[in-house]
Amino acid sequence: MKENNMQTLVKRFDENPLVTPSMLKPSAPDLEITCVFNPGAFQFEGKIWLLARVAERPVQKPGSVSFPILKEGEVTVLTFDTSDPKLDCHDPREIKYDGVGYLTTLSHLRLLCSTDGIHFTDPGLPALRGMGRNETLGIEDCRVSVLNDGRFVLTYSAVCTDGYGIGMRITRDWKSFENYGMVLPPSNKDCALFEEPIDGQYMAIHRPSGVIVGGHYMWIGTSPNLKHWGEHTCIAQCRPGKWDSARIGIGAAPIKTVAGWLVLYHGANEKNRYCVGAMLLDLKNPRQVIARMDEPLLEPTAVYEREGFFGNVIFSNGHILRGDQLFLYYGAADSVIAGAQISLTELLGRLVT
Amino acid sequence: MKENNMQTLVKRFDENPLVTPSMLKPSAPDLEITCVFNPGAFQFEGKIWLLARVAERPVQKPGSVSFPILKEGEVTVLTFDTSDPKLDCHDPREIKYDGVGYLTTLSHLRLLCSTDGIHFTDPGLPALRGMGRNETLGIEDCRVSVLNDGRFVLTYSAVCTDGYGIGMRITRDWKSFENYGMVLPPSNKDCALFEEPIDGQYMAIHRPSGVIVGGHYMWIGTSPNLKHWGEHTCIAQCRPGKWDSARIGIGAAPIKTVAGWLVLYHGANEKNRYCVGAMLLDLKNPRQVIARMDEPLLEPTAVYEREGFFGNVIFSNGHILRGDQLFLYYGAADSVIAGAQISLTELLGRLVT
Repeated sequence: MKENNMQTLVKRFDENPLVTPSMLKPSAPDLEITCVFNPGAFQFEGKIWLLARVAERPVQKPGSVSFPILKEGEVTVLTFDTSDPKLDCHDPREIKYDGVGYLTTLSHLRLLCSTDGIHFTDPGLPALRGMGRNETLGIEDCRVSVLNDGRFVLTYSAVCTDGYGIGMRITRDWKSFENYGMVLPPSNKDCALFEEPIDGQYMAIHRPSGVIVGGHYMWIGTSPNLKHWGEHTCIAQCRPGKWDSARIGIGAAPIKTVAGWLVLYHGANEKNRYCVGAMLLDLKNPRQVIARMDEPLLEPTAVYEREGFFGNVIFSNGHILRGDQLFLYYGAADSVIAGAQISLTELLGRLVT
Repeated sequence: MKENNMQTLVKRFDENPLVTPSMLKPSAPDLEITCVFNPGAFQFEGKIWLLARVAERPVQKPGSVSFPILKEGEVTVLTFDTSDPKLDCHDPREIKYDGVGYLTTLSHLRLLCSTDGIHFTDPGLPALRGMGRNETLGIEDCRVSVLNDGRFVLTYSAVCTDGYGIGMRITRDWKSFENYGMVLPPSNKDCALFEEPIDGQYMAIHRPSGVIVGGHYMWIGTSPNLKHWGEHTCIAQCRPGKWDSARIGIGAAPIKTVAGWLVLYHGANEKNRYCVGAMLLDLKNPRQVIARMDEPLLEPTAVYEREGFFGNVIFSNGHILRGDQLFLYYGAADSVIAGAQISLTELLGRLVT
């Protein structure tokens, strides 16, 4: 295997994994936490916060598959016999029953808090849960973008049996949240907002999925009001034969630098091996990709990245910038939360040359 | 086969098919018209107009597959050897080459004109063609919605190798068109606008495609300005075991009636047999389906509906209301344009009881 020089840029935290399921309490006594992963990240009131995805299900019994869904806001457990010919459960993450797709776990978002960005605790704040008919299978993988006026914009995967779309909620104080509904219809995952308007409009990078033509590519859209989106254009495709050959999607909000908008993104190949890569977008016209790393920045090599609920996955949708140091948080093997840090200057140096 | 009582409501025109490829001139001497189908329909300056989809390709030679794409606005022909192992052309409508999806034909939209709604001619007006990078594989299946202020809103499938989305153009005079860009990102087909705002917002029914969870279902979105869309909600799913078990999508603009918004839609089963059906939405809250016909209104039974480029297809995205008579125009077997008429009163009578 060719040595990947890019990975020497990144230093994983010695304390990894930072958060594991056993550190948290399930949200109900009859559920267990299967995974805590894919956190959004932000700074608020002098602390570093993660908005972690917590995936739960009942303790599984031999011969059946059980998973929770939300029915009028209440958790209801569905159980299917594994010998039922209508059941397809070959993927640990998903289930098909009689042609209808479900998920094996139900995810909510939980706030975890830290003073150093490494040691996180659960202060027991109210969780964010699926609301309404678009989110009966949960909410996942939330990006937190911070606007200049103090608003935190949460964009996440909203799931129900009708599909995966992008849901949005907005808060200023992390106590009250305004629900903006589904801002991008199915099938769409991985949406993060630019943290300032460009040419008078909000912009976001998102990941619609093509059927027949197209693929799991990265697109940009614009909005006058955050709630309604249009002017969609594809900005980056998968690269056949490379580590990001099968699907790509943005991490957290693009980072404004003198060289351009720095975008960390995930890419996966046909074997569902997820890595983190980087690209640079033109400052004035972010539809223009001006640089894209050949190799991934971060590949699943540590044991907690290779083995877990769904192995060989590094998925980052949260970062914090402290001076020149970028703290990158990520889900590892769809099981736990880990972190790494990187010098922004060094990263840009490699990306631009 | 059970008798379908609904179909007695519909009277096909004796003159069917109304428009065939041989009646039109190709847009370039080296192309042939493979299909003319799926027309939008509207009334303007006392006449009835169709905005027909015209699909073209070069005359095919044995041992190869040739199809046109747009490259910087110019038609360019790509040719692949049928023995090339990277080529997948088992579907007459689509091609995959080395993992990238293409279409076997390139579609533009052409205006056809009639005084009686039955005999149509091509007055030779400029065609509407794909523009920009979102439409390099053409534009298809245009719905024409008419707003009270005299604007005609064109919503169509915009295709490029990055995916199928919904493009929009707006005109008042059918001479100059304002391009609103891609209003709904992939994978999305079949979008039609309500012809008046509801609760101060524009609304449209569209058809995003689910991946893993969800399916090819009908959704509603809202917009303050026609260009940006949000608040997406699913309103109708496929019905397992019925004629609309695999995919559904709206026809032309919903028709306002005293009983509710009448929506004609297409449904297909797993064998890609496309029929037209009807549902009724609540006038004040069109997210609420108040009636849906069990049986299709129109099934492919005539020979021109059963046999053609892609047989057993009736696909309607255009209608005209003249008094109580609804003139329904449709693509038959993805090859020709046909029409039928139906009494609105009789249709509503069956739908509501």
